[in-house]
Amino acid sequence: MRRFKCTIQYDGTGYSGYQVQPNGVTIQEVVEKTLARMHKHPVKVIGSGRTDARVHAQGQVIHFDTELAIAPDSMVKALNTLLPDDIRVRDCKEVASDFEARYDVVGKEYRYFVRRTEDAFRRHQSVLIPYALDLDVMRQAMTYLVGTHDFSSFCVAKTETDNRIRTIYEAELIEYGEELIFRFKGSGFLYNQIRIMVGTLFDVGRGRFAATDIKKMLAAKDRNVAGVTAPPHGLYLWEVFYPESKKGI
Amino acid sequence: MRRFKCTIQYDGTGYSGYQVQPNGVTIQEVVEKTLARMHKHPVKVIGSGRTDARVHAQGQVIHFDTELAIAPDSMVKALNTLLPDDIRVRDCKEVASDFEARYDVVGKEYRYFVRRTEDAFRRHQSVLIPYALDLDVMRQAMTYLVGTHDFSSFCVAKTETDNRIRTIYEAELIEYGEELIFRFKGSGFLYNQIRIMVGTLFDVGRGRFAATDIKKMLAAKDRNVAGVTAPPHGLYLWEVFYPESKKGI
Repeated sequence: MRRFKCTIQYDGTGYSGYQVQPNGVTIQEVVEKTLARMHKHPVKVIGSGRTDARVHAQGQVIHFDTELAIAPDSMVKALNTLLPDDIRVRDCKEVASDFEARYDVVGKEYRYFVRRTEDAFRRHQSVLIPYALDLDVMRQAMTYLVGTHDFSSFCVAKTETDNRIRTIYEAELIEYGEELIFRFKGSGFLYNQIRIMVGTLFDVGRGRFAATDIKKMLAAKDRNVAGVTAPPHGLYLWEVFYPESKKGI
Repeated sequence: MRRFKCTIQYDGTGYSGYQVQPNGVTIQEVVEKTLARMHKHPVKVIGSGRTDARVHAQGQVIHFDTELAIAPDSMVKALNTLLPDDIRVRDCKEVASDFEARYDVVGKEYRYFVRRTEDAFRRHQSVLIPYALDLDVMRQAMTYLVGTHDFSSFCVAKTETDNRIRTIYEAELIEYGEELIFRFKGSGFLYNQIRIMVGTLFDVGRGRFAATDIKKMLAAKDRNVAGVTAPPHGLYLWEVFYPESKKGI
């Protein structure tokens, strides 16, 4: 058996998220069914982590084991022929048999896209914010999110993990044409963390919170003190990072 | 009664083209139903011309008459609230009562988008051409299309108009990131003309035709000598031009 690591891109619009669940079609399910068709038996796919319904990915990472005598490049072509066109395989590498797409993650980058004007073509790919935003104040607020903090105020209250301490390495607000892009790179993120941070930053940008309120919110460790959860369809899992030692063979 | 000229943008993916027809939902039909809802009576909408099923528009122009006491800017907001989010109104102006969105057209620009690599997000908005293309040869071929010609070889054989002479003012092939954009500006275009020209240029780019074959194709006035019709979903009606005298009041 060989282990393959694939980087996949998907438009999450038509899916109930990444992970297999009882109701709705998921990314994992579609990829597993496609691999089962190729292999003539079930193939288990492990992803770097979940993405919610309508959330997109440019660089989700998965791994699976195969006994097929196929080169990684040919696996890319075979999968792209069989998968629906809203899920694309960008890259495939053979990795050591101890590579784990989920447990070996050392960091992730997410991007959140906001458009300032109506656009029929971007309706599922960015969130329309028609009101004025003070970008300088938002950038100031983002500096308080960078670093190692308890992010209890910025995750779903019922999050099942005990440890809500995470590290954000980089937080940046980019103006790109008619759009704004929030870029967050960190050790890992809690459930809905990016969407709650972005929703709170919208409120900072329109003057409902001061930039320094972010510091108070972090200290409070209470979901009720932060802003609303921004909609899913602006969010992209952009890149997943692994240690150098886990590079392909 | 006042006459309004609106510039609309649409993602043609879910529509059977612009013009009302017995089967399938069309752009014109959806806009007319929305205006009827606002006006409490039927409102006739005239477009600058048709677009095919799955063809997009960045700047389709329409006109209609209204007795509502509403400012053009408020019309934009009202329509964007009521229309589905794959049809957006970009601009609305009051024009003289003799303005005709269809008959006053003096030129149109179309763009055709081609992507070179797999992309889940561009699947309905550009056409994937994975094989190598010789852009220099294609650009050479495009120079022969510019000017006033009989385009019988580059329109659907059963095209009902007698006059197949049209003028192309500009033809350009732009490299934009991972994509190629064919840009054509002309007096007007015959049914499927852009898609047949682009399909033929694909064949030039892969060496099936020489650039100078375009001259022979124009001279033949026979649809059978040109290349295939390129798929609809790469095509955008980009801009419609009217005389200065027909500017908004």
